[in-house]
Amino acid sequence: MGMTMTQKILAKHAGMESVSAGQLIEANVDLTLANDITGPVAIREMEKAGFEKVFDNRKIALVMDHFAPNKDIKSAEQCLECRQFARKHQIVNFFDVGEMGIEHALLPEKGLTAPGELIIGADSHTCTYGALGAFSTGVGSTDLAAGMATGKAWFKVPEAIRFELTGALQPDVSGKDVILHIIGKIGVDGALYKSMEFTGEGVSALSMDDRFTICNMAIEAGAKNGIFPVDDKTMDYIKGRVDREITVFAADDDAAYGETIEIDLSALKPTVACPHLPENTKTVDEMGRVEIQQSVIGSCTNGRIEDMRAAAAILKGRHVHQDVRTIIIPATQEVYLQCIEEGLTKIFIQAGAIVSTPTCGPCLGGHMGILAHGERSVSTTNRNFVGRMGHITSEIYLASPAVAAASAVAGYICTPADL
Amino acid sequence: MGMTMTQKILAKHAGMESVSAGQLIEANVDLTLANDITGPVAIREMEKAGFEKVFDNRKIALVMDHFAPNKDIKSAEQCLECRQFARKHQIVNFFDVGEMGIEHALLPEKGLTAPGELIIGADSHTCTYGALGAFSTGVGSTDLAAGMATGKAWFKVPEAIRFELTGALQPDVSGKDVILHIIGKIGVDGALYKSMEFTGEGVSALSMDDRFTICNMAIEAGAKNGIFPVDDKTMDYIKGRVDREITVFAADDDAAYGETIEIDLSALKPTVACPHLPENTKTVDEMGRVEIQQSVIGSCTNGRIEDMRAAAAILKGRHVHQDVRTIIIPATQEVYLQCIEEGLTKIFIQAGAIVSTPTCGPCLGGHMGILAHGERSVSTTNRNFVGRMGHITSEIYLASPAVAAASAVAGYICTPADL
Repeated sequence: MGMTMTQKILAKHAGMESVSAGQLIEANVDLTLANDITGPVAIREMEKAGFEKVFDNRKIALVMDHFAPNKDIKSAEQCLECRQFARKHQIVNFFDVGEMGIEHALLPEKGLTAPGELIIGADSHTCTYGALGAFSTGVGSTDLAAGMATGKAWFKVPEAIRFELTGALQPDVSGKDVILHIIGKIGVDGALYKSMEFTGEGVSALSMDDRFTICNMAIEAGAKNGIFPVDDKTMDYIKGRVDREITVFAADDDAAYGETIEIDLSALKPTVACPHLPENTKTVDEMGRVEIQQSVIGSCTNGRIEDMRAAAAILKGRHVHQDVRTIIIPATQEVYLQCIEEGLTKIFIQAGAIVSTPTCGPCLGGHMGILAHGERSVSTTNRNFVGRMGHITSEIYLASPAVAAASAVAGYICTPADL
Repeated sequence: MGMTMTQKILAKHAGMESVSAGQLIEANVDLTLANDITGPVAIREMEKAGFEKVFDNRKIALVMDHFAPNKDIKSAEQCLECRQFARKHQIVNFFDVGEMGIEHALLPEKGLTAPGELIIGADSHTCTYGALGAFSTGVGSTDLAAGMATGKAWFKVPEAIRFELTGALQPDVSGKDVILHIIGKIGVDGALYKSMEFTGEGVSALSMDDRFTICNMAIEAGAKNGIFPVDDKTMDYIKGRVDREITVFAADDDAAYGETIEIDLSALKPTVACPHLPENTKTVDEMGRVEIQQSVIGSCTNGRIEDMRAAAAILKGRHVHQDVRTIIIPATQEVYLQCIEEGLTKIFIQAGAIVSTPTCGPCLGGHMGILAHGERSVSTTNRNFVGRMGHITSEIYLASPAVAAASAVAGYICTPADL
């Protein structure tokens, strides 16, 4: 019996000929990641365990993105702790205010994640890098502490669900709609501890940014990881970013999948996850009139340049509804600058939106757009749990940048076609 | 005995021929201002006092700027309260996320403040509009409540200190250095409840943005207001912004001043107010090597386009020091957009600074750059009190945009000439 793409990457990093689902292995990691929330916990765990050195100062990324630029004294202290650790251990990839961005957009952009690599991060959306054909997954801060010190991590080899993609997306339908559709179909535990392996002729029509968005939310279906095959688009993306040798893995022809689910991309419509779970999906045309007070376009899920372009295409020459605060957050300094160069930022400002410096912002209740009681936000972020963006009676509707931008203009949730 | 410029504006608004220092008067106000911190207090006071209507829905400004875009649930609730009040009373000049800016930069820009007018605001830096030849001053939220309801306010007519300005500023010396020099000279209570009236041939060489900065910090010398004569630069500024009739007031030739202080602008050097009072001034060349971890360029004091240009002139082609988080906050959406159009934003990003959406930000410990214990920030803001920008052991050094930008590059407080 052959191995899945994920299993082949794990076997290689464990120094084994083959692995099979359910097996416990210890594998070498190519990169560990922590942010300003999880970093301090991991640092303290590492010191408590008596580790005095990191395994490789070039293979540790620390990104100050969640509550940075510091939103309060507590977050300032957390960033300071990371900064002192970075200095002490001469961490090469420490990203502070000024060179930062949201971790899961930043690391691929900086070439720190590549096909075939194994990345662990103390953040649940670490699964994003599967878009590049890497195995990446979120771990707890204690596991990360061990990873930073030893360069190794334990895994139970996951079994896989194969998603066979066919067709191509319609206009105004994006990777976000694909993953929301899938989560709606299989549920938030539909892929529990499994790999979501995306395959099929539909893959080639998906942009890299679509793939990042899809893998980013694999965790919202409970998955261990999401992963795409490596193709020309992947190689184009890493060109100029990754200059080390890479190994490309592909699933064996006779790989065992627990299940295969077919998704016809051309049949998908703009989709929204209603409160308070990502699985509560409806297509926009099934929704009644849901008025909103805020629209957030950004995050590790949808803060990349294509997301910005999608939003700008709709906001151009229009103005947001007077009752909708529209907050646009390019995910990294590179995206921020590109938005300016392409004239997108001007479109946003003239449309009455605001543009924030890169940060996770309101996604997990941090800052830059927290909701009051009873307020409703459409948001391109990844979780709509109770109170995640503010008051416990506030509501979050997860959507694509196109839907979030159109809704900002209309004042209620709609698609660009409804404007 | 004649009247000062301030006294003439007060007399006119009280419907009196003349007033004199120390007299208690009731005057009509042309505009009342509150923000997301003081607005809710004023609104509740107004309702508690039984007032059901505002005196004029066009003469009330409510600006969501301090902790907006909302930094937490509490600030979200405060903005919501203001928003509901604005809707109920059909407040024309309600500025929410998307059309907002820092109040004291925004109101002049929107033409809501003009020469000869009387403006009260529930914010101490309301004295900014004296730059336009208006009488404007900060009041408590209860006084503001009465003002919003009745259109009137009580004042004790202030006596005046005349600042006779001569000469012109050297390169890299700005309005900020002028006012810091003055506060250093007379102390934080040096103009207690007095008008600071700026006169002399040196006035004409000061730009409007310099004048805004100077009047903005009059309160830091304890003054009731600061005020500049109206000249061609004033008229140029309001052209296209103010379309109502204005009355220009000038001090009588025989006006009584408690004191006259001469300031030779050409003799001033880049000046910094050291912790923890604005009066603790030194010229930069008198300071030792003071290393910093953060540089903030923005605020109602120094977030205008000239401030941005001054910072960009220094940051162009340079990179900020690796240990200095450099946070640039254009004061309004108009300034933000102009920074993009003029290429300043690109310079900032390429220099490793970040650019925030307009907000008061870290100035009063809100968000967007709060300090951890022991951290030091150079900042173009207006107050360096203990703990104002974060932890009580953190330190703030007040300076001009030129000094803040140069210091960001050097890593310690210096002037552009020191680079």
